[in-house]
Amino acid sequence: MANRNHFTRSVSRHLPFGEKRDTRFYGMHIVSVEQFDRQDLDTIFEVAREMRSMVERVGSFDLLKGKVLANLFYEPSTRTSSSFAAAVQRLGGSVLQIDNVTFSSVSKGEVLQDTIRTMESYTDAIVLRHPEEGSAAIAASVATKPIINAGDGPGEHPTQALLDMFTIREELGRIDGLTVTMLGDLKYGRTVHSLARLLALYDIRLHFVAPDILHMPAALVEKLKEQGMAPCEHVDLADVLPETDVLYVTRVQRERFDDPSMYEGVKGSYVVAPETMAAAKERMIIIHPLPRVDEISMEMDDDPRAAYFRQMENGMYVRMALLALVLGKA
Amino acid sequence: MANRNHFTRSVSRHLPFGEKRDTRFYGMHIVSVEQFDRQDLDTIFEVAREMRSMVERVGSFDLLKGKVLANLFYEPSTRTSSSFAAAVQRLGGSVLQIDNVTFSSVSKGEVLQDTIRTMESYTDAIVLRHPEEGSAAIAASVATKPIINAGDGPGEHPTQALLDMFTIREELGRIDGLTVTMLGDLKYGRTVHSLARLLALYDIRLHFVAPDILHMPAALVEKLKEQGMAPCEHVDLADVLPETDVLYVTRVQRERFDDPSMYEGVKGSYVVAPETMAAAKERMIIIHPLPRVDEISMEMDDDPRAAYFRQMENGMYVRMALLALVLGKA
Amino acid sequence: MANRNHFTRSVSRHLPFGEKRDTRFYGMHIVSVEQFDRQDLDTIFEVAREMRSMVERVGSFDLLKGKVLANLFYEPSTRTSSSFAAAVQRLGGSVLQIDNVTFSSVSKGEVLQDTIRTMESYTDAIVLRHPEEGSAAIAASVATKPIINAGDGPGEHPTQALLDMFTIREELGRIDGLTVTMLGDLKYGRTVHSLARLLALYDIRLHFVAPDILHMPAALVEKLKEQGMAPCEHVDLADVLPETDVLYVTRVQRERFDDPSMYEGVKGSYVVAPETMAAAKERMIIIHPLPRVDEISMEMDDDPRAAYFRQMENGMYVRMALLALVLGKA
Repeated sequence: MANRNHFTRSVSRHLPFGEKRDTRFYGMHIVSVEQFDRQDLDTIFEVAREMRSMVERVGSFDLLKGKVLANLFYEPSTRTSSSFAAAVQRLGGSVLQIDNVTFSSVSKGEVLQDTIRTMESYTDAIVLRHPEEGSAAIAASVATKPIINAGDGPGEHPTQALLDMFTIREELGRIDGLTVTMLGDLKYGRTVHSLARLLALYDIRLHFVAPDILHMPAALVEKLKEQGMAPCEHVDLADVLPETDVLYVTRVQRERFDDPSMYEGVKGSYVVAPETMAAAKERMIIIHPLPRVDEISMEMDDDPRAAYFRQMENGMYVRMALLALVLGKA
Repeated sequence: MANRNHFTRSVSRHLPFGEKRDTRFYGMHIVSVEQFDRQDLDTIFEVAREMRSMVERVGSFDLLKGKVLANLFYEPSTRTSSSFAAAVQRLGGSVLQIDNVTFSSVSKGEVLQDTIRTMESYTDAIVLRHPEEGSAAIAASVATKPIINAGDGPGEHPTQALLDMFTIREELGRIDGLTVTMLGDLKYGRTVHSLARLLALYDIRLHFVAPDILHMPAALVEKLKEQGMAPCEHVDLADVLPETDVLYVTRVQRERFDDPSMYEGVKGSYVVAPETMAAAKERMIIIHPLPRVDEISMEMDDDPRAAYFRQMENGMYVRMALLALVLGKA
Repeated sequence: MANRNHFTRSVSRHLPFGEKRDTRFYGMHIVSVEQFDRQDLDTIFEVAREMRSMVERVGSFDLLKGKVLANLFYEPSTRTSSSFAAAVQRLGGSVLQIDNVTFSSVSKGEVLQDTIRTMESYTDAIVLRHPEEGSAAIAASVATKPIINAGDGPGEHPTQALLDMFTIREELGRIDGLTVTMLGDLKYGRTVHSLARLLALYDIRLHFVAPDILHMPAALVEKLKEQGMAPCEHVDLADVLPETDVLYVTRVQRERFDDPSMYEGVKGSYVVAPETMAAAKERMIIIHPLPRVDEISMEMDDDPRAAYFRQMENGMYVRMALLALVLGKA
């Protein structure tokens, strides 16, 4: 597990030989996808699968009864916030929701470290969404309770990448050997960056399809190559769609373009609709971090390949798994 | 049950003959008062009565333990939101509160259908407050979990009408045979419109007392007449107060009048105070959807006929009943 | 118990002789520090100590299972709001959070009394934070459920004063005989005013250290003298630090000074840092209501005398104790 020590609680725990791997998550901060190796992902996926199965059978259960989760959001993100809240509630715990608009201490100039110390004295774990890169690592450096990074600006959003991976694994039965195509805004899309780094742990063929000005950052491409991947860059989805097993769609935002006519010129190429999908395999999936606006036509929603709503639901199971793991109850 | 099929879950359920009527609510969306007949109301009132009795005896109980309710409010309405939240909490469930100010996905352009699909993947039922008429029906059209309309703009607010009816029934012991007088702004008052439509299921004498420019809409009056009612319109409360069993007060807002002097001319006629009530029966009730500003004098609050605070409390019992019914636990 | 009748529920309860003192809290409003005598504080501290011990051993327990607490905040105060929410959740109850931004009824002109009547019909107790002095007393005058004042503008913040007292007692083992120094803005600091009044119940030596324009109000000093205290006023912390057992630090805000150069002249004197503390006793404590900005250097955080984070955690235990006491479950 890379960087394990850096993100583990400073309180040292002397673990016996032969420990069950999932006990190794106990007390851990979830800050970056860099923390995880394939075995970690297997553990998370296995627990997430159990969570889904239990939710389907009984809805909720009391694994985390009495636990209080701080949902500390310095910027709004209803989907992420709601899925963590539902996750802890379905495990019998409760949530202490703190939204940016009401965070008076911060407006009075309190540093993040003090806010974290406050919240950890009331709660058992802290989910943190913050607009500044590195804030989750700062929080983890002072906290004695687990910090879960729910997005730190242009930095990371590790639980999103984990739920993306879990969705691929569950929908297609495996990860090794797949062809993954990332489409749209690959320059600013935090989720594609994190997912690409996790995919590098597997034997994957990777395609990037983006407008000229929204290419995957060169540094990340370089890093992926160092890890043995050979990502190919394209501007036309048609080149790679027929062989694609996983199509990861992101939104191309008009605001990214200085010249509006440039946006008008490309936008049609990055919309997924039934006619686009005629060229795709019958067994493949379309995923998307949501919210989608018009980059995936609503006509696609009933297509069995449209996995984005199932992916979103998986978010709750993966977050249930992470909460159970870091609180030592999985 | 009028329009039953339209609002019931699309998943068809083949019910055995002789089913208990309250199992028919299982999985149902609550979108409009039009869904209900008298027998439905009897069922809801009976369950609400049990809820009140259980709250009075033990405060809370675990009927909905493990259930998660989404309280999805696109516009603020603390009273309605709080009573749904308290309702599910008193039944042992938990609430996932989403207020408009933090709803980032929406600000990013997500359509209501996607937001509903998201929330239903995390929760067991969704309470929806939305400023646009018809939004609850749109939500119900995509949802596989029950949607409860908590007000859709100028459209409907069915749970308010149900709690109004329940209050009349509990305070006066019956509904048939009563004289109901609606006072104030009958043009824009969503709650009086919905209530009038429910009252049309009963044998009621109905009076409308409103300023000239705030009359009950002609289309609704026409509809009530088709249903066999003969509502009388008045401008002076004194004409009908002596025979009134239920006085439903609503607020006349200054902003409705183009000419301020017109407002000044009428406002005194639409304030309920001890001197007004001298002409009323000893056994009758005053109800109001709340908040009240000055259309009911605070001096009235200790009058036993002032039922508006008990009415508000009834809101929680009716909402507990509806949640238990649609989740199949009544 | 001073002013007991004024703040107790109007519903009279005939208590048997020989009642346990803590049953006397049942149904009580917590509005002002003036309500309490030393015996009351002993009761609260004893229950708070039990709460801490139970949280340390099991995290949460079901003492208030089924109870619903309204957290009614007309102005934001995340720390106070969160500690009440966590308190009731750790006792197995749930919280109905109402923040100012969403309080639509109020924006429609509803009076506080009606809002309180609404919330008490849904919940078992109400925590009220309001910008206007006297609002907690108004709320208590209409409520039949316990009201807990969580700060009413320039008025009182009794639970903060109680947690300050509890911290002193737990950190130093006693209250009588201590020397307490209050530092910083003593003119506008609501917390130092309330704490000074509680300290007057004990045998305490009290020092005030403040810039000229931020002196403790003369009326409060007069009152403390009437109660037998002899507070000394200073401008230089060095005069009294060596004999200080409890240093209560508050923030000196730039905005209080008309003349910026005046602020620049004094600000250095009101910052607590390692070099300042060299002159202090080895066994003494620094407390602060938080949030701190720069009036206590972060370098102090690891000093064992820095008790402000433990003090904050104590806030949860004291609030758990108060909730259990007023709800009759301690």
